[in-house]
Amino acid sequence: MAEHRFEPSAYYNSFGSYEPELSIAPGDRVVTTTADAGGFGQSGERVAKPGNPLTGPFVVEGAEPGDQLVIQLETIVPNRDNGFTVGSIAPHIVDGDFVPDLPARDLMRWSVDIEAGTASLRDDTATPADLTVPIAPMLGCIGVAPAGGQAISTATSGPYGGNMDYRLVAPGATVLLPVFTEGALLFVGDGHAAQGDGEIVGTGIEISMDVAFTVELRKGIEARWPRLETATHLIALGNARPLDQALQHATTELVRWLAAEHGVDNRAAAHRLGQVGEYDIGNVFDPAYTVAAKIAKAWVG
Amino acid sequence: MAEHRFEPSAYYNSFGSYEPELSIAPGDRVVTTTADAGGFGQSGERVAKPGNPLTGPFVVEGAEPGDQLVIQLETIVPNRDNGFTVGSIAPHIVDGDFVPDLPARDLMRWSVDIEAGTASLRDDTATPADLTVPIAPMLGCIGVAPAGGQAISTATSGPYGGNMDYRLVAPGATVLLPVFTEGALLFVGDGHAAQGDGEIVGTGIEISMDVAFTVELRKGIEARWPRLETATHLIALGNARPLDQALQHATTELVRWLAAEHGVDNRAAAHRLGQVGEYDIGNVFDPAYTVAAKIAKAWVG
Amino acid sequence: MAEHRFEPSAYYNSFGSYEPELSIAPGDRVVTTTADAGGFGQSGERVAKPGNPLTGPFVVEGAEPGDQLVIQLETIVPNRDNGFTVGSIAPHIVDGDFVPDLPARDLMRWSVDIEAGTASLRDDTATPADLTVPIAPMLGCIGVAPAGGQAISTATSGPYGGNMDYRLVAPGATVLLPVFTEGALLFVGDGHAAQGDGEIVGTGIEISMDVAFTVELRKGIEARWPRLETATHLIALGNARPLDQALQHATTELVRWLAAEHGVDNRAAAHRLGQVGEYDIGNVFDPAYTVAAKIAKAWVG
Amino acid sequence: MAEHRFEPSAYYNSFGSYEPELSIAPGDRVVTTTADAGGFGQSGERVAKPGNPLTGPFVVEGAEPGDQLVIQLETIVPNRDNGFTVGSIAPHIVDGDFVPDLPARDLMRWSVDIEAGTASLRDDTATPADLTVPIAPMLGCIGVAPAGGQAISTATSGPYGGNMDYRLVAPGATVLLPVFTEGALLFVGDGHAAQGDGEIVGTGIEISMDVAFTVELRKGIEARWPRLETATHLIALGNARPLDQALQHATTELVRWLAAEHGVDNRAAAHRLGQVGEYDIGNVFDPAYTVAAKIAKAWVG
Repeated sequence: MAEHRFEPSAYYNSFGSYEPELSIAPGDRVVTTTADAGGFGQSGERVAKPGNPLTGPFVVEGAEPGDQLVIQLETIVPNRDNGFTVGSIAPHIVDGDFVPDLPARDLMRWSVDIEAGTASLRDDTATPADLTVPIAPMLGCIGVAPAGGQAISTATSGPYGGNMDYRLVAPGATVLLPVFTEGALLFVGDGHAAQGDGEIVGTGIEISMDVAFTVELRKGIEARWPRLETATHLIALGNARPLDQALQHATTELVRWLAAEHGVDNRAAAHRLGQVGEYDIGNVFDPAYTVAAKIAKAWVG
Repeated sequence: MAEHRFEPSAYYNSFGSYEPELSIAPGDRVVTTTADAGGFGQSGERVAKPGNPLTGPFVVEGAEPGDQLVIQLETIVPNRDNGFTVGSIAPHIVDGDFVPDLPARDLMRWSVDIEAGTASLRDDTATPADLTVPIAPMLGCIGVAPAGGQAISTATSGPYGGNMDYRLVAPGATVLLPVFTEGALLFVGDGHAAQGDGEIVGTGIEISMDVAFTVELRKGIEARWPRLETATHLIALGNARPLDQALQHATTELVRWLAAEHGVDNRAAAHRLGQVGEYDIGNVFDPAYTVAAKIAKAWVG
Repeated sequence: MAEHRFEPSAYYNSFGSYEPELSIAPGDRVVTTTADAGGFGQSGERVAKPGNPLTGPFVVEGAEPGDQLVIQLETIVPNRDNGFTVGSIAPHIVDGDFVPDLPARDLMRWSVDIEAGTASLRDDTATPADLTVPIAPMLGCIGVAPAGGQAISTATSGPYGGNMDYRLVAPGATVLLPVFTEGALLFVGDGHAAQGDGEIVGTGIEISMDVAFTVELRKGIEARWPRLETATHLIALGNARPLDQALQHATTELVRWLAAEHGVDNRAAAHRLGQVGEYDIGNVFDPAYTVAAKIAKAWVG
Repeated sequence: MAEHRFEPSAYYNSFGSYEPELSIAPGDRVVTTTADAGGFGQSGERVAKPGNPLTGPFVVEGAEPGDQLVIQLETIVPNRDNGFTVGSIAPHIVDGDFVPDLPARDLMRWSVDIEAGTASLRDDTATPADLTVPIAPMLGCIGVAPAGGQAISTATSGPYGGNMDYRLVAPGATVLLPVFTEGALLFVGDGHAAQGDGEIVGTGIEISMDVAFTVELRKGIEARWPRLETATHLIALGNARPLDQALQHATTELVRWLAAEHGVDNRAAAHRLGQVGEYDIGNVFDPAYTVAAKIAKAWVG
């Protein structure tokens, strides 16, 4: 159960079967950093190409297709005092005939005060001009190498995880990822100091992060999509367009999970999900949208 | 500010410009009952045709197209000790190739204990067989007569409200509805003792209700979709298929509302909704789906 | 087998269970006229409210829910020398970030030469300014009263037909409509001198028409959606949003039709539709889109 | 203007920046073969991994990002006497509650008679059991290496082309592809002896092919999606889910093309596409669907 302090020297803009940067054993802990979505690091200098550069890949010894990676997210903390967002809602998220009373999208700079736990913006072109929100750090990107030797842009997501932009991929959560290649090849990146449901401006508060997590391995698990376990909930993620299909994937995956691992058959799942199930919209911005199907653990077992 | 005790003798299965059952003045309070979605009333006897029979219409004196009805929901309480659900997830909500390990959908009877605040099910064909959940009463249907003299089935919803099946249409909430006809013609119905996000089995716990609400009138309000105000949130509802379009309508309506009534211009709205905005999925079962775009009042004002 | 010459004096802007304007027997022929989508008649004067005013309803003696109307379209001919279109593509039909090089939509007037069989436009704000296309007259609206006493705007469509805006609803075609109410209550309207696939500017070349058709009745037919038979094809129509769902309805309806009436079981239908099946996009503009699933008669029978 | 006879020894199951198998100059002609979607070649023996194995990549000398490849398809001819299809319609293409009267999908073998120009099936489990259709050979897969060094499965498609499964990618057509990498890296594969609109069983009649094409290069062309030119039509392709978005991409690309290269501004395009534009549905089976927006050349120029 080693601890690896890993300082990235190269970054990838796709999830793919690249040469591993670090080899870890199940049970190991990784302490590392991520650059922001624009490729800027802790110093504010460019360290990577823009477009969600990834830290990794981490090869997990013994991981094989059909296994499941269990990533406990311990620390996700901004490591500098500012982040950026885009200043307008993406056009495909509003009605086609809606014309906003503002010019085209551009970058906004936020001050981030980690001690106070807040992020603040001043935009003199907006009314009101000031906004301070609590930070709630998360990772927009987490995933493994996709099946079949593919290399897929960090713009999007799929069964392998990817750019899911879901705000509960946050400290304390356990992320469970299907393995598609030998060694799994885990990547992380795209930290957000905060992000609303849907990531409707196309960004969270994009910022570089200090990150720590442990990785376990489960052999031979029937899972098709990323899953998440928080203190209170079991969560299955579906990544697809349109939202309807992302929701179908997420719902089906949660139903399968409940049956395979929690002793809740499909009929009992229908009773529970029908009356106390929950959905979150991760993102409706990226090429694949992300929907989370959730059930509080209280109703399961 | 009269109080009307109204016992329905007729029910409608469409939202339409029917003869009003009761005339009320702005500020009045209405105390009434609703039959369940199957047409069964407090006694458990059939009192109406199945398919979300509606109580009403209530004509609101002075209401004209372009106005907005303000309905404060005070009481929504089950008035009998049992309700029903459907026992399987609808096929369009899971992956097309998913075959559940249970036969076709059928009705399940729940015991509802209003004192304890719980609903309980025993289904010996399910594992586990027992489930008890807290009740959280709500109205699946609330709406006015649609534009242009239309009469639209209570299966679906639209700009006029309708069968939105959104669990925050609940006591304490204020529902704001655009007016399309003289007198508005308000209807309520389809009470649920509880309902999960998405109404994915096609029902909440369907039950008859005692209902009380007051109605105010706002003249000349620019609103295109139903809105909701709770103790903590401003919420705009979009009703359409697919989910993507329901979300577009809801987001656009919330942005318009913030600009017109809360002094938040489109750019300030982008900053807020982008980083602390929320979405709920009301239903993904009905012909029109319902998405709720939400902002906590803390970020507005 | 009477022939009825019917000059409309009232028009409806919804498909609904209105008082019949004319009663016809199965086998009868109706010769009538339709106003254009804006409510203008043969003289160019306004004769009806805008928004696809309908001629009808025609009550068909003996028609009951579960039957099927068989409408042979004999004549659809423009009865004046000009029509109108909208001059821009609707925003929801292009990418959200596409900004056209022209101002907002407005009306364009076309000259229609029935002898020559052409429609011509001159638009000095466009390059090129001139366009002449062949006319191909059709009816945007054909349908019966919807189920359950509903009255649904002529903006949209459903299982009852409606504003399907499909260019093969044209002379020589037979339209088959499910019956939902006693007497069926048939309506026609919204003639187009021509219309492209998708009706992507929101109009065809809108024009008043002389129309003639005969109506037969088939008892107890299992049909859920409008169907069309042309000289060469069997065509099932699905009306819904999004396109994916309209296509699901159309495909399923064609598969059911082949099994029920053409001796082609589901497996044989898969072989045929998979390798020689066709789709048309009727409209992607209206609240419900229309997709046509087609099979050449050569492959059936 | 050399002619290259290329016999593939390796095949790829992704479109990616792999080592080129052959280098060609603009103007050159390539004569080669493709394996079928299952990896079987002319002899009927397995020559490649299943899942649309690709012939190529062909590096085009001088091609740079921002250029456009111009591929004239001269010959696409089956090189063996049999092909296969899947025997049922995919579940996501029919209504969720439709249960076909046949068991799960399986492979069907067709006899292909190139002289007669027909493909024939006998399926004793179907009624009728026999079917003979004309062949209309096409390539399901044609594309270049995607942007950013990605390697994307031949299951799907995108701006780079890919598995578009559109039946007009056929002899006589010219395919125009945007270039994203140095040398473009062209691939072809997945021949179909015939295929219906939508590829709704998930296959055409899958067969190995003899293929011949020439490649030209256009420098600095503003194009975002694959385009096609046939004897009669200009066609823009959009690849995305859902259909609505594929149609948006295709329509927008056609409008841009008309403006940039055919002297038809956006308003003139609206007049033409609105009244005489056409759509085809390429596929509704693959992860990205394909829609073709078309205009007859008669209306342009």
